[in-house]
Amino acid sequence: MSHTSTYAAKSNSSPLEPHSITRRSVRPKDVQISIEYCGVCHTDIHLVRNDWGMSNYPIVPGHEIVGKVTALGSEVDHLSLGQRVAVGCFVDSCRTCASCTADMEQYCLSGFTATYNSATEDPGGFTFGGYSKNIVVDQHFVLTIPKGLDPAGAAPLLCAGITTYSPLQHWGVKPGMKVGIIGLGGLGHMGVKFSHAMGAKTVMITTSQNKAADALRLGADEVLISTDPVAMQSKTGEFDFLLNTIPVPHDFNQYMPLLKVDGTMCIVGAVGPTAELNSGNLIFGRRSVAGSLVGGIKETQEMLDFCGKHNIVSEIEMIKISEINEAYERMIKSEVKYRFVIDMASLN
Amino acid sequence: MSHTSTYAAKSNSSPLEPHSITRRSVRPKDVQISIEYCGVCHTDIHLVRNDWGMSNYPIVPGHEIVGKVTALGSEVDHLSLGQRVAVGCFVDSCRTCASCTADMEQYCLSGFTATYNSATEDPGGFTFGGYSKNIVVDQHFVLTIPKGLDPAGAAPLLCAGITTYSPLQHWGVKPGMKVGIIGLGGLGHMGVKFSHAMGAKTVMITTSQNKAADALRLGADEVLISTDPVAMQSKTGEFDFLLNTIPVPHDFNQYMPLLKVDGTMCIVGAVGPTAELNSGNLIFGRRSVAGSLVGGIKETQEMLDFCGKHNIVSEIEMIKISEINEAYERMIKSEVKYRFVIDMASLN
Repeated sequence: MSHTSTYAAKSNSSPLEPHSITRRSVRPKDVQISIEYCGVCHTDIHLVRNDWGMSNYPIVPGHEIVGKVTALGSEVDHLSLGQRVAVGCFVDSCRTCASCTADMEQYCLSGFTATYNSATEDPGGFTFGGYSKNIVVDQHFVLTIPKGLDPAGAAPLLCAGITTYSPLQHWGVKPGMKVGIIGLGGLGHMGVKFSHAMGAKTVMITTSQNKAADALRLGADEVLISTDPVAMQSKTGEFDFLLNTIPVPHDFNQYMPLLKVDGTMCIVGAVGPTAELNSGNLIFGRRSVAGSLVGGIKETQEMLDFCGKHNIVSEIEMIKISEINEAYERMIKSEVKYRFVIDMASLN
Repeated sequence: MSHTSTYAAKSNSSPLEPHSITRRSVRPKDVQISIEYCGVCHTDIHLVRNDWGMSNYPIVPGHEIVGKVTALGSEVDHLSLGQRVAVGCFVDSCRTCASCTADMEQYCLSGFTATYNSATEDPGGFTFGGYSKNIVVDQHFVLTIPKGLDPAGAAPLLCAGITTYSPLQHWGVKPGMKVGIIGLGGLGHMGVKFSHAMGAKTVMITTSQNKAADALRLGADEVLISTDPVAMQSKTGEFDFLLNTIPVPHDFNQYMPLLKVDGTMCIVGAVGPTAELNSGNLIFGRRSVAGSLVGGIKETQEMLDFCGKHNIVSEIEMIKISEINEAYERMIKSEVKYRFVIDMASLN
């Protein structure tokens, strides 16, 4: 087991020696992973900066983890040394509640153990994430990466990927359906790829005409500019499903008339107070506004296998760990297409 | 065909002679109905007072209509003279769109023709509703009242009844489920009766301890006082479905944690801007907020037959037409248990 890891501390905190953060020893059901790549998620910024008032320093962020197995506990029999594996947003759950037994650990009724910043009996008292050389995780929460899939591009699948794949699957997206992906960023670009691969007519809905060419390249059949009221009006009642990836509070009501009767808009980006709900859009068409959180372990593996079959990875910009603070600043300005991934070989 | 009808005009409008409002002649597919009873809906107040800026005076309100067949067009073969029938919230639709052909005329993509205040080629230029001695309606939009059902108590089934029955059916309420009915008024009291009759464990969720005894009498298994944070907290994650009948803007977010994973709250009372949506309640549990509007003709007949089987009618207070203005004032103060019904024999 390596003790080497890193962290991004609140800027006004005292720096800590990396050696003060340790990983637990490999237990019978554990898998030790040498991390090759870790995606950078907006959640990392929120927790590093304590935006949600729930940060436990020192933090090692990172929950889009790809690496290779370097040690296996005595009871792990479905993985092998050197195999390429992945870890996503959580590393434990109660495993007995109605959600866990239905393969929806993300909705564990006792609350899952997040990959970082969650209380645990492990050394350090809190889980430490993927901006690190190694991680030790219970086998149930270790995914496998299909052969042939670019491992760096696969890292963001563990959060941005499953966050968009899961609702598209849950609401039955398939050929013959018309799906709108609202917002083109880390989540939205994955949503376009998945919706297209699932066979739906896929429309990128964005405020920015500048993003049109990229959206079409990623697999969108059409682009709808949401600031154009005539264009929006012309699409009234056309969509079976809308995936809303906008990461900040916004007036989601404007999208609701795009839905057919019984259509659903699922919010996966903005968390918290968003805008005043106009119930008229729901009542006059039996429409729904829903939300969705990442996906369960079984579904995450299905997503990775789907990506292997369709050769889907995230569009990424690779960075060194020393560039992480600059990357955060650029993410806040939406200056990344579409996800930063840290090459963990840069951590020495 | 009778020319007798009445109207409730905006208080500052000039009165019109009842005789200036006429009904169309009976056409081959029409049914003429002598109205016995008409329920009084909150919509009547809104349109009489032009609260929504869409009223076309003179208005004859009323869309909870029960009466007897007095004339049949030559092509009507499934109804007979003297049969007890009913008319609900709409009297026509395009009949060709995706909604109409799926028996969801309430979501007609061209917009249905409301039972009153809708433009039509009929005499008067607008449809006239049930505060009248007679009405002429196309057979497709005429329902039948099961024998043995109290006709006065059945009148509110045509709006308050179907508005609550339809979402309970659509979201699959059945034995083994736990359902919350939020708000105990004209809609809520029907929701309790239906949810109970469908076999679900039914909880009345109300701000008022005073309503507890009545809720239990109507069929609720429990009462949850929504202003009691300890009681609310104790029910977290217990409900499969919530039917929200509150008729005014309100903070619906407080009810969302009551839902299980994948649970839905359906709003049927408050139409329009309601409150700021907190998407966190949706995301952390894949929950939905939905809306629903009355029901289609086929489903409305199913609802009436269900009521016949289970002997379900609305709790009503019968009034004379001369008492209508007083009734409106009492409805605004929620001083009716639970629906006013006009005895149309009082109209001379």
